[in-house]
Order: sequence, then structure tokens, then C-alpha cells
Amino acid sequence: MSEYTLHCFGESGNAYKAALMLELSRCDWSPVWVDYFNGETRQAEFRAGTNEMGEVPILGHKRLKLTQSGVILDYLAEQTRKFGPKSEDERREVWRWILFDNHKFTSYLATLRFMINFTKTGETPVTEFLRPRVISALKIVDQHLAGQPFIIGKRATIADFSLCGYLFYGEEIPVPLQEHIHVMKWLDRIRALPGWKPPYELMPRGI
Amino acid sequence: MSEYTLHCFGESGNAYKAALMLELSRCDWSPVWVDYFNGETRQAEFRAGTNEMGEVPILGHKRLKLTQSGVILDYLAEQTRKFGPKSEDERREVWRWILFDNHKFTSYLATLRFMINFTKTGETPVTEFLRPRVISALKIVDQHLAGQPFIIGKRATIADFSLCGYLFYGEEIPVPLQEHIHVMKWLDRIRALPGWKPPYELMPRGI
Repeated sequence: MSEYTLHCFGESGNAYKAALMLELSRCDWSPVWVDYFNGETRQAEFRAGTNEMGEVPILGHKRLKLTQSGVILDYLAEQTRKFGPKSEDERREVWRWILFDNHKFTSYLATLRFMINFTKTGETPVTEFLRPRVISALKIVDQHLAGQPFIIGKRATIADFSLCGYLFYGEEIPVPLQEHIHVMKWLDRIRALPGWKPPYELMPRGI
Repeated sequence: MSEYTLHCFGESGNAYKAALMLELSRCDWSPVWVDYFNGETRQAEFRAGTNEMGEVPILGHKRLKLTQSGVILDYLAEQTRKFGPKSEDERREVWRWILFDNHKFTSYLATLRFMINFTKTGETPVTEFLRPRVISALKIVDQHLAGQPFIIGKRATIADFSLCGYLFYGEEIPVPLQEHIHVMKWLDRIRALPGWKPPYELMPRGI
């Protein structure tokens, strides 16, 4: 059995954040596929026994079962001593961007991608509400990356892995990513990290 | 001059999370009013000089200028040694709920309240998209609180202050809160903490 298990499915960029960290840190890990598209995370057994928040990813390690990608990334950085902050200032900066990602970036981007690609709603008032918010958040990240190669400075950290989670899904991305040149160059830098793999090579797909 | 400053405005539940923590921890602090409703946070000077993310709250303390309510709460818990986690397990549990709040609770609730109360859109496809998501998150919190008085157990922590941020706005709350009995009792417990005050008593209003 692997040292780490990750409850996940390929389409989940939140799960990819954790899977990418595990892979780049050379952890001994294996994915545990969750049948999200057939409602597994909404079932009472999953909520009661696995995660009351009804979400993946879930990291299993020794006695621990951790949820929320930000908590998982923080834990893995501690365990592996890789891609973590090296000072209190850096620690706060990492969390600042992980929170921004959760609140203003992934929250809108993941939902917009889901609607366009999976529920296939086409353009609706809701997608028209979400898209400018995604682009506004993307611009903030782009502006930030104009001055430095990675989110907190010169080296990749878990803050990068959090923010990039939904940006390696190629044609599924529902905004014009290529207009954000600093983001594009930053994604190239992450792609160049030894061991990098795209989401569908790390986790089994649901669809 | 106060030891702590908080850039804020009364209507911001995210700012209230920090203001409440400062007040309950008996910090020497003062609010610095930000004219959000006239666009101050969207101006280039604010973005360049104050917060590139274009948001309040911002905590000023000594040489530091901290943004993101989760980072501010974590910092204040460290500084004051109040309302913080007391073990690594607790620390992860606190962050798990702060992330859930940012991603799935405040993100939807704050936007819905803003549309209903401030931009006064009335019911639209977007409010109809947001409301069930707020209620779904509220149910997860309610279920969680069925088993314990506060978010991580028997005592109040910054995880409570994060999640309750938008729930002390009385009639501005755009969902039927009273249907969630464990949430209601939990809010009573927070209201009973020595020094508790509602948002508009702690921060100047914009409207």
C-alpha cells in the first residue's frame, strides 16, 4: 500500500492541486477514484464517513484524513519539507494567495468550467456573472507575476500549485488564458518542474 | 495611535471577522474607513499602494500590512494567544473551516447579500444560482454544529469568527437563517462572548 492515498477524480482541479504536489515531491502515493459525476460525494455515507463537506480531495496519511486542498498542501509541505514557506513572512504570503485562490479564483473558475464543459449550459446569465470575475482574478494574478517568477518570489511553492490547479485543463478552460502573458510564462515554469504531469495523467477521469 | 489599524467598512463581513477578533481579544485598535461604495478599492492607487487584491480588510501592525481575513485572524491569534488552535490537529481543523468559509460559504453569501441589499437586483438567475449554494453550505455548518458548541470543539476560535462574519447582519441576511437551529444557537454563544459587538458598532458604514 502507498504511503499516501488521495481521494480524487481527474476532472477536479482541487484534487489536482494535491496530486501535483504529491508527484512533484516524489511521494509514494496512489489515487482513490471517487465517482463524483454519479453523485458519490453527495451521498449520506460519503458525508458521514468520508467528508462532511462533501468534497474531494481527501488525503490519507497514517492516522490522518485531511480535506481542503489548502490544508493538504500545507501538510505535505511540512511532511516533505518541499515547496513550503521558509519564514513567517513567507508563510503568511503563501496563505494569502491560497485564500485568494479559494475565494476569488478557483471558486468562480471551477464553476464556470463545470457549466461550460460538463453540464453544458451554454452561455447563461450565470456564466456571464462568473466569467468577468474569473478574468478579474486572473488579471490580479497576472499583474502580480509581472514582477516575479513565482507567487511568493523566486521559487515554486504550494501557493503556485493552489492557483494553477484549474489552469492545466487545456481546452476546457473557459477564459482566454493566452491574453495573460505573465500567467502563461508562469505556467511554463511550473510545467518545467521535474516530474510535472497534467491532471489526466495523475488521476482517473470520471467522464 | 492605536497598536492595530484595520482598513474596513461596516458593510464588509470579511472586515467584521477581523474587527470582531480584535475586539474580543481586547486589542488596542482603530478602524480606517475605506470608501468601497464609491470605488476606492478599485482605484489604481489602492491596488498599487494598499492591496493588489483590491479588497478589505487590511490589518496594519508594526511593519506589517496583512490582507485576507484568514491570514489576519491567524496572525492575531498568534499575537494575542487567544482564540487560536492549541495543537497541530486543531490548527488543521481551523484552517479547514476557514478555507470552507472562503470557498463555499462567504463567497456565495456575501455576493448574494450584496445583490439583494445594495445593488438591489431583485431575484435574478444569478441570485437563484447563489441562494441554494449558500443554503447547502449553511446546512453543512448546521450539521457540524449539531455535535459540538463551536466549530473545532468546546471553545470559540478564529474558525468561528471567520464563518460567522456575514451572519450578524440581521435583516440583510438573504436566507432563512432561523431554519438552522444549531447555527442559531451557535450565534447566540458567540454573541455571549465578553465584548461581542455587531458589525455596525465596530466599523463605520459606507451607506
